[in-house]
Amino acid sequence: MKLTPLSDRVVLKMTEAEETTKGGIILTGSAKEKPSVAEVIAVGPGGMVDGNPVTMTVKPGDKVITDKYAGTKITLEDVEYIIVKQGDILAIVE
Amino acid sequence: MKLTPLSDRVVLKMTEAEETTKGGIILTGSAKEKPSVAEVIAVGPGGMVDGNPVTMTVKPGDKVITDKYAGTKITLEDVEYIIVKQGDILAIVE
Amino acid sequence: MKLTPLSDRVVLKMTEAEETTKGGIILTGSAKEKPSVAEVIAVGPGGMVDGNPVTMTVKPGDKVITDKYAGTKITLEDVEYIIVKQGDILAIVE
Amino acid sequence: MKLTPLSDRVVLKMTEAEETTKGGIILTGSAKEKPSVAEVIAVGPGGMVDGNPVTMTVKPGDKVITDKYAGTKITLEDVEYIIVKQGDILAIVE
Amino acid sequence: MKLTPLSDRVVLKMTEAEETTKGGIILTGSAKEKPSVAEVIAVGPGGMVDGNPVTMTVKPGDKVITDKYAGTKITLEDVEYIIVKQGDILAIVE
Amino acid sequence: MKLTPLSDRVVLKMTEAEETTKGGIILTGSAKEKPSVAEVIAVGPGGMVDGNPVTMTVKPGDKVITDKYAGTKITLEDVEYIIVKQGDILAIVE
Amino acid sequence: MKLTPLSDRVVLKMTEAEETTKGGIILTGSAKEKPSVAEVIAVGPGGMVDGNPVTMTVKPGDKVITDKYAGTKITLEDVEYIIVKQGDILAIVE
Repeated sequence: MKLTPLSDRVVLKMTEAEETTKGGIILTGSAKEKPSVAEVIAVGPGGMVDGNPVTMTVKPGDKVITDKYAGTKITLEDVEYIIVKQGDILAIVE
Repeated sequence: MKLTPLSDRVVLKMTEAEETTKGGIILTGSAKEKPSVAEVIAVGPGGMVDGNPVTMTVKPGDKVITDKYAGTKITLEDVEYIIVKQGDILAIVE
Repeated sequence: MKLTPLSDRVVLKMTEAEETTKGGIILTGSAKEKPSVAEVIAVGPGGMVDGNPVTMTVKPGDKVITDKYAGTKITLEDVEYIIVKQGDILAIVE
Repeated sequence: MKLTPLSDRVVLKMTEAEETTKGGIILTGSAKEKPSVAEVIAVGPGGMVDGNPVTMTVKPGDKVITDKYAGTKITLEDVEYIIVKQGDILAIVE
Repeated sequence: MKLTPLSDRVVLKMTEAEETTKGGIILTGSAKEKPSVAEVIAVGPGGMVDGNPVTMTVKPGDKVITDKYAGTKITLEDVEYIIVKQGDILAIVE
Repeated sequence: MKLTPLSDRVVLKMTEAEETTKGGIILTGSAKEKPSVAEVIAVGPGGMVDGNPVTMTVKPGDKVITDKYAGTKITLEDVEYIIVKQGDILAIVE
Repeated sequence: MKLTPLSDRVVLKMTEAEETTKGGIILTGSAKEKPSVAEVIAVGPGGMVDGNPVTMTVKPGDKVITDKYAGTKITLEDVEYIIVKQGDILAIVE
């Protein structure tokens, strides 16, 4: 089973929240919210979106930080995914 | 009786929510909401929408995931349909 | 007495809600709302609307489904009409 | 005393609400609201409005139906007028 | 002391509310609000505003009717002014 | 220490509210609000802003009136500044 | 570990709030809010953003003032970052 995103959308797999004390990644928007670091699983074709050309710049395997409130969550074969627009991805973590 | 969508709209038939424990598809937006996996039944012609050219990329028979809050529901000859804009379709499930 | 819509507007006549159990058309947005199937009575000329060219694709006699919350209702010579923008028409029912 | 509308605006004079039982015009948005049939008194020059070209298609003497919530009311020499944008005029009544 | 409006803005001086019974000008939006008839005092240069070309069509001395809720009030040397965008001026009163 | 505004932004220094009875400048939006007359301190380069070309027309030393609710206040070396977009400047006071 | 911002985004590191009495930088939006002076750490590539070309004008090392409510906070290896769009940066402090 496979998710093929349309347009400028990107399928992400949420990674485990690393709450280690040294070098851990903790998003601090409002206290109890979950971190939004995720791995890119599949990338849409881009193209014209609302009349503007969109080039996809992320690729499967990238670890990314997304806008906390963006996207639609879905569970497929017991794995939790989130589908966002590329514009809701803020940065790549390396 | 047939539904012919206009513009960039797509007619979807809701599929049964598969709540199987292994490989089942469960959307986890907020706890009690119904999954939004659906089958494409009919596709509008696309063309200029709000001044932007829209090419239709889904086709009848595709299983798709939509934005949970998008679309208008309608029951026709005892079958429940939902009419969405193509832009509200997030991904194709294969 | 005649209604001539301007721009991209369409005059619709609400049809009776068919609540037959077999093959009836029932819109199921929220439980008690009225179905939104309607017959096209008159069609505006289209043309430039908010800077975008609009071509009218519905024609008088078409049975259409509209966005439930769209349009302005008016009663003229005891007949109830609703005036919508063509973009609020979702699909043609055949 | 004369009102000369600017841009894509139209000066309308509200007509008396005809509540006759046969062939009367009654707008049925929400129960107690006044009908919105009006006579065109003066028409702006059109031209570029928010970057889009607007051609005026109504003319003085036209009876029109407007969006109920549109426009600014004004009383001039004991006559009640309403000033709307042409885009808020839905249809011409003939 | 002088007010020079920028862009598509217009400086208006509120005129006294004429509550004469014959031929008086009374704005009837909601019961206790003040009329919005004003005299044009100074006119901005127009030009590109949010990417659209704006030509100024009002001139000092014009009596105008404005959108009641538009503009910023300011008192300069004991005279009350209101600064609006030209697009908030509905009509010229002659 | 110096503030260099980006894009179409302008750094203003609030001037003392002159509450003199003759020729004083008093902004009368809602009773207790502070006047919004300010002196231009620094002007951004303009250029493309949200896809539209912006030419800066104010210059350091100008006394300006701004939209009361616009801008971000900042105190730098005990002086209070406000940073606004040029489009939030209504008029120059001379 | 490194944050590479996408598009027109900029990674900032919050600097300590300097509450010195002479020449200190204190943002005075509403009384208890934290100052928004930050150091630029990484800058996205710019390019087409929502159909408009964006040129990045800030560079790593710049001290900047941002719109208080803009951006997403993230803690990476015990350092607090904030990711903003360049358009939310108001001015450079020198």
